[in-house]
Amino acid sequence: MGRRHRDALFPRAAIDRLTRHVDIDPRFVAETFETVPEPAAVELLITSWGCAPLDAAALARMSGLKAVVHAAGSVKHHVTEACWDRDIRVSTAAAANAVPVAEYTLAAILFANKRVREISGLYREHREALDWAAYYPGFGNYRRTIGLVGASLVGRRVLELLRPHDFDVLLADPHLDPAEARSMGARLVGLDEMLAVCDVVSLHAPALPETHHLLDARRLSLLRDGATLVNTGRGSLVDTDALTAEASSGRVHAVLDVTEPEVLPATSPLYSLPNVLLTPHIAGSLGGELQRITRSALEEVERYCAGEEFAHAVTRAALTTSA
Amino acid sequence: MGRRHRDALFPRAAIDRLTRHVDIDPRFVAETFETVPEPAAVELLITSWGCAPLDAAALARMSGLKAVVHAAGSVKHHVTEACWDRDIRVSTAAAANAVPVAEYTLAAILFANKRVREISGLYREHREALDWAAYYPGFGNYRRTIGLVGASLVGRRVLELLRPHDFDVLLADPHLDPAEARSMGARLVGLDEMLAVCDVVSLHAPALPETHHLLDARRLSLLRDGATLVNTGRGSLVDTDALTAEASSGRVHAVLDVTEPEVLPATSPLYSLPNVLLTPHIAGSLGGELQRITRSALEEVERYCAGEEFAHAVTRAALTTSA
Ligand SMILES: NC(=O)c1ccc[n+]([C@@H]2O[C@H](COP(=O)([O-])OP(=O)(O)OC[C@H]3O[C@@H](n4cnc5c(N)ncnc54)[C@H](O)[C@@H]3O)[C@@H](O)[C@H]2O)c1
Ligand SMILES: NC(=O)c1ccc[n+]([C@@H]2O[C@H](COP(=O)([O-])OP(=O)(O)OC[C@H]3O[C@@H](n4cnc5c(N)ncnc54)[C@H](O)[C@@H]3O)[C@@H](O)[C@H]2O)c1
Repeated sequence: MGRRHRDALFPRAAIDRLTRHVDIDPRFVAETFETVPEPAAVELLITSWGCAPLDAAALARMSGLKAVVHAAGSVKHHVTEACWDRDIRVSTAAAANAVPVAEYTLAAILFANKRVREISGLYREHREALDWAAYYPGFGNYRRTIGLVGASLVGRRVLELLRPHDFDVLLADPHLDPAEARSMGARLVGLDEMLAVCDVVSLHAPALPETHHLLDARRLSLLRDGATLVNTGRGSLVDTDALTAEASSGRVHAVLDVTEPEVLPATSPLYSLPNVLLTPHIAGSLGGELQRITRSALEEVERYCAGEEFAHAVTRAALTTSA
Repeated sequence: MGRRHRDALFPRAAIDRLTRHVDIDPRFVAETFETVPEPAAVELLITSWGCAPLDAAALARMSGLKAVVHAAGSVKHHVTEACWDRDIRVSTAAAANAVPVAEYTLAAILFANKRVREISGLYREHREALDWAAYYPGFGNYRRTIGLVGASLVGRRVLELLRPHDFDVLLADPHLDPAEARSMGARLVGLDEMLAVCDVVSLHAPALPETHHLLDARRLSLLRDGATLVNTGRGSLVDTDALTAEASSGRVHAVLDVTEPEVLPATSPLYSLPNVLLTPHIAGSLGGELQRITRSALEEVERYCAGEEFAHAVTRAALTTSA
């Protein structure tokens, strides 16, 4: 992992806890596998953002490698086919990383229905008491319909967090059956149907070939007037130009933590539209939230040392439908 | 109530439901009691925002009045001592009105800890990827300490909504004992202690003589550097000038739905500080959320007609410590 991540994820207390279970040189962080001093002795790797791909060459050097505990979300950048071919056990902290994304999404939905951002802007502009309900008839968080695209780790956590509120929740996910959706308190619908009836649609599907521009111009045009699109998933899920057009006209509101490209061109209207909240990929674990990732990774290492299964094992098969 | 509120709170379906239980002239809305056609025949009043005070003169005219069902929050503006002297039964929809305030507060806390507003502003300004954690070390929603001032209807609902998150919750309320706070999953502390240890302090106490400027310059100075003050209670709870100074220096962040005065002077820095989210008293029920108030009021009328107690009765004694 990058040194910056090492310092943030593994402060002194975390290293102390690790050394109770494993042999580790706590001063050492490899950014590439060429620099690992005794590669053949490495049984378990703790990885995170910035890890180089574990390709055949790296694996050849680490002939004793049995497991990878990823202290971050997706393992797709570094866990290669060669790892699966060698039956290396892989664990991810994606479930821990889903928590802050779901929290961001919850807050985004509550504020979007309430038009907090828009009304705050109008108040700053006019500096008087206006009839806000006249600007946004029927707004608020009572009996609204929320659509979640993807019953992923994040999507399922959002679903739980929405439960105390007066919402109907719809789910769109080709890998889910209606009974599973019902057992989660949601109704499974097709994506087109969802777009046509929801007040907020929130994207929690992974970036996959089949989800590229899942929300293209046609699908975006299905959104109701005044609907809000929340994207904390991946920028590639949405046709940015089409969304920019819908948001610029004022028809659609948006909360975007991810975009395509990431860091939008400086000329993008999305930076300053009153009906768009744009953040630079911060919904996931940052700052103090990294400690949740650390705890998850340490627990996986401890399970490994105790001869137990990983609680958050990743399988080769699951990767075809996951982040 | 004001005609505007009548139209928003009692659309056709609500009036239809009412007429199943009571004799009512559905076209009639009194804004003052002088215009009530057969005052002596009035047994129950449904009131809301904009209702004139039910003073001795009004009560003398409505000699048969037995109950007031308030389709809004506080009854202090219109339920006078004369009503209590005549043992008129009073009900409020304050519990229904607490729901959106608690939702606003929850979203405000989650976004404040995550510095969503601040980072969104920095991203708009710089239009590049920066190290956000360097701007706000340790930010995020993991293991933060949240202080709620007032175990009021709103405060208790916020407490429930905070439960799924990784927070320590402290409560300050002179009318609560430690065991009650513990049973709600919070720890009772003094207000000064709370201010010194919390990442977010959220005000849910009512406006009372003893809560006027509860957060004065001295108390505000106790807040930790980088702490966020959320006020959805009443503007009078906070010394606005002292808060403006703390926020202008950048030391304290704030989310303010209420201020003193309401509609701040056009010159107030609070309108445009990057670390302040200012909204014009919208946390309570607005737009579609008014239907929750309507439902609460209709259920109270139905209880009255069935000879039952109100579920949300207001007593004269409770008013000395409530909103
Ligand atoms: N903004 C951030 O900081 C941040 C942080 C973490 C994750 N993410 C993103 O959030 C999204 C969810 O992450 P996760 O870890 O919960 O994902 P995940 O790996 O749990 O998602 C897998 C699930 O997605 C669903 N899915 C697959 N294809 C789908 C399709 N075509 N339509 C709808 N649903 C489909 C399936 O239920 C599958 O099981 C991903 O896009 C991920 O990249 C963003
Ligand atoms: N922003 C809005 O749109 C909006 C809407 C509704 C309510 N409010 C405000 O929210 C606040 C809470 O409303 P509510 O209906 O939940 O109140 P409430 O009537 O339930 O509050 C009563 C409780 O407040 C607590 N309390 C009393 N004095 C206190 C003190 N000095 N310090 C701490 N706690 C004290 C006590 O527990 C008391 O039982 C009020 O200020 C109300 O005006 C704002």
